[in-house]
Amino acid sequence: MTMNRRQFLQAASAAAVAGAFSFPAFAAPGVLPEKWDEEYDVVVIGSGFAGLAAAIEASDAGASVVILEKMRTPGGNSIINGGIMAVPGSPEQAAQGIKDSPELMMKDMLKAGGQLNHPEKVRFLCDHAVDTYHWAVEKVGCRFQSKRIKQEGGHSVPRSLFTENGSGSAIVTKELAYLEKKGLKPRTRCFAQTFLRDTDGRVKGVLVRDGYRFPKADSGKLKAIRARKGVVLAYGGFAADAKYRQIFDPKLTDKFDTTNQPGATSESWREASRIGCQMIQSDWIQILPQTSPDEKGFGIGFAWSGHVSMFGLWVDAKTGKRFVNELANRKVRADAILNVRNMGHDAIAIGDSGTAKSFEIIRPGMLKRELDRKCVFKCETLEEVAKRFGVPVEELQKSVATVNDSVKTRKDVMGRPVNKDMQPLGTGPWYVARMSPKIHHCMGGLLTNLDTQVIDVEGKPIPGLYAAGEATGGVHGQVRLGSCAVIDCLTNGRIAGQMAAKNATWM
Amino acid sequence: MTMNRRQFLQAASAAAVAGAFSFPAFAAPGVLPEKWDEEYDVVVIGSGFAGLAAAIEASDAGASVVILEKMRTPGGNSIINGGIMAVPGSPEQAAQGIKDSPELMMKDMLKAGGQLNHPEKVRFLCDHAVDTYHWAVEKVGCRFQSKRIKQEGGHSVPRSLFTENGSGSAIVTKELAYLEKKGLKPRTRCFAQTFLRDTDGRVKGVLVRDGYRFPKADSGKLKAIRARKGVVLAYGGFAADAKYRQIFDPKLTDKFDTTNQPGATSESWREASRIGCQMIQSDWIQILPQTSPDEKGFGIGFAWSGHVSMFGLWVDAKTGKRFVNELANRKVRADAILNVRNMGHDAIAIGDSGTAKSFEIIRPGMLKRELDRKCVFKCETLEEVAKRFGVPVEELQKSVATVNDSVKTRKDVMGRPVNKDMQPLGTGPWYVARMSPKIHHCMGGLLTNLDTQVIDVEGKPIPGLYAAGEATGGVHGQVRLGSCAVIDCLTNGRIAGQMAAKNATWM
Repeated sequence: MTMNRRQFLQAASAAAVAGAFSFPAFAAPGVLPEKWDEEYDVVVIGSGFAGLAAAIEASDAGASVVILEKMRTPGGNSIINGGIMAVPGSPEQAAQGIKDSPELMMKDMLKAGGQLNHPEKVRFLCDHAVDTYHWAVEKVGCRFQSKRIKQEGGHSVPRSLFTENGSGSAIVTKELAYLEKKGLKPRTRCFAQTFLRDTDGRVKGVLVRDGYRFPKADSGKLKAIRARKGVVLAYGGFAADAKYRQIFDPKLTDKFDTTNQPGATSESWREASRIGCQMIQSDWIQILPQTSPDEKGFGIGFAWSGHVSMFGLWVDAKTGKRFVNELANRKVRADAILNVRNMGHDAIAIGDSGTAKSFEIIRPGMLKRELDRKCVFKCETLEEVAKRFGVPVEELQKSVATVNDSVKTRKDVMGRPVNKDMQPLGTGPWYVARMSPKIHHCMGGLLTNLDTQVIDVEGKPIPGLYAAGEATGGVHGQVRLGSCAVIDCLTNGRIAGQMAAKNATWM
Repeated sequence: MTMNRRQFLQAASAAAVAGAFSFPAFAAPGVLPEKWDEEYDVVVIGSGFAGLAAAIEASDAGASVVILEKMRTPGGNSIINGGIMAVPGSPEQAAQGIKDSPELMMKDMLKAGGQLNHPEKVRFLCDHAVDTYHWAVEKVGCRFQSKRIKQEGGHSVPRSLFTENGSGSAIVTKELAYLEKKGLKPRTRCFAQTFLRDTDGRVKGVLVRDGYRFPKADSGKLKAIRARKGVVLAYGGFAADAKYRQIFDPKLTDKFDTTNQPGATSESWREASRIGCQMIQSDWIQILPQTSPDEKGFGIGFAWSGHVSMFGLWVDAKTGKRFVNELANRKVRADAILNVRNMGHDAIAIGDSGTAKSFEIIRPGMLKRELDRKCVFKCETLEEVAKRFGVPVEELQKSVATVNDSVKTRKDVMGRPVNKDMQPLGTGPWYVARMSPKIHHCMGGLLTNLDTQVIDVEGKPIPGLYAAGEATGGVHGQVRLGSCAVIDCLTNGRIAGQMAAKNATWM
């Protein structure tokens, strides 16, 4: 593309005087169609926790909304999520006398995040979590269990509420139902191929492939959708994209399984980069510690091993010893399990009949499903556990004794916080799951401000562009604590929807 | 910018069929001038180790070359660099009977890098280091000291060669002299404002501000320079840019001093992002452990503390105890010093007259300069050290004893590798420097392949664009080992110059 010399230098000069040091002043000047195929106030890309929350808020603010989902079904990773949500100061905590505060949650998040988190984003999230909880319960109709509150690894107190079915689907289905009552359904198989950023810097719409068949790049019919007020990016992470994740962390080859649905790929990450969105900390990719090698994908075995992390013990099957504080942050635990497995040993999670009983309360029927799927195994005695998994039985007994000591003394040799409901182990049957970490979550992503505006590579908000959830970076830093994603997605998804709906319409 | 519907959808369709999922198929379609002000085969941006190496190789391959430097003087950070270069298998090592190999250096780099390094980039560097050494000595005329080889923190063996004056300037001045003989001088105060990437994806030139006065964005005269064969990005890091570095690591506020020259800012990082270059691992920003709080910037005090890390001891002045393996990697050491200082204690480096003697051999005159600048302090006795810095004298004596034990037993309680030339400490005078980490090096940056081609956000090499040195990511991973930057800059700078010169000319 050429300009004559005078035009060229004038334009360059104008850009510099405006305070921009580059020319044109933003990436990828868009090419807009003269006519649009469709028009909405707000275009939401992605139909997980964040995208649906944005759609609810934008719609309730009076905006016309379309939700674009590239896959066959809505819900993304959220619908297969583990179903715990951190809320510092929930009514459930109050009922159990658990003292908590936004400050304490912030402290936990910054500690696990290695202070790589953007403190103002963490503060905002922690300060607004209770409000989001009420929004979810009172407006959207979500239900959380009141009997048990999980103390997830890295959290100072039990603050992670279980959804009613112990899965993120309990939230997603309520969000979908809320939207459906308003006549809004995610448009599935609709891939947002191109984010249309105009020469004035504003994002004005998206070019989609309607009837898209993932991952066929040229499938579907091209349509240009105008976003009169704003576009919300809630497209999630790229944990299922082995090629892209290896750019940032070459260890994460395709030999690693992932907990994510197959659509957690990089197309939108690349497209956002192309139009000049500032990306941060994309090399922080979380591996979920306690997933099972005895099933594909996220699976269900992690639920037992996660419960055991509070009430049972994790053991190196070859030595019979505990090898990590079972409630350390996810990176510490995943690294520890990988070390055990890299020595050729199995890492196993062990609980007894009491552990199973408390598990049944919060995840009814789950243990039976796990046994049926053969990702959890039942042994009548500790000796049978030892025999089945090749564990030296005396060492195993000693390890169980350390747990029982911790119940008595309220102090654990491995440094695990002792749960108030913890009971001594000893009564069979015992239930055992093998553990092997799987790639789980992208901590990095789009740089956003507190209004969820996306910041470009020159440090300025991109007009008309908002983002929330796993697509964004800065909230979790180096290590996301379990149960902090759901509350982040809902809280910032809400803000993104509100802000987009409030934005001025472009002419 | 608008197109009619048919044009628009045709273009979009063509982009997708070509295998690209976005449209246009790359960032920031360029706006090229009809006429160029100047033309060269190869345009090199930056005049440090890497840029000059690229210019030498491109020029020797017959290309016409221009070297653009935004600052008043050439050399960037390289000219104030500490002057040690890792070479696995140098003649100097052979003469001293030190066994080393590219494999061993690769192992050290990957270990410190937390396996975040791209293994193929590390292998390439280690395999070509000896060749670059010969290039530097035989072609460019660099001289390295043969008497002492440094075992820098994190390296398994002594492999870091000192330049003749103990500074990177000894290399930069030889590179400049080599180029000057060919009639080539870096064009200083010439800022490469805009990288001109055309609609066909190729980078075809740069828009510069000639006569630029850093950091005035609108200073200088705009000129368009055509790059017939290629542009080499060797613009270095952004350690001096507090605002930009906080995007990636919010801890690194402007309260931190930096070792870098003031021009180590983010303009070119943002510009490269704008045209769609894939950035990786930019959140890994290195803090140099042993810089002095008693002088501004890089200074010179680090040299004594660095020498002490091999032959003396580092002590928490409040407790009198050693607090870290003085030869651990830079992150471990910087974190340890920050911990000491965050408790309100001084961290000090202590050596005796013997330490001073060996220091004089490798850095003649340096100790006197450091004493004059009051960043190193002389004390006749260990008691005087204790008094002056408020150290409990008995604890200090015990700490010195641990060092002397390690000389005897060849095993150190802090895990420091014991240098073969190490002598027991005990003879005054003693020399002491205070330490306070300063921001030093950007490990992340442009994604490149082994041919130093810059990769774009869609995973494809950008035609006509090459990069080397601190501007790039992937070589060092999480933690760069000291003395690995110089060899990286020279090795990959050479490749970038060769490749750019070999590239086809665009019409």
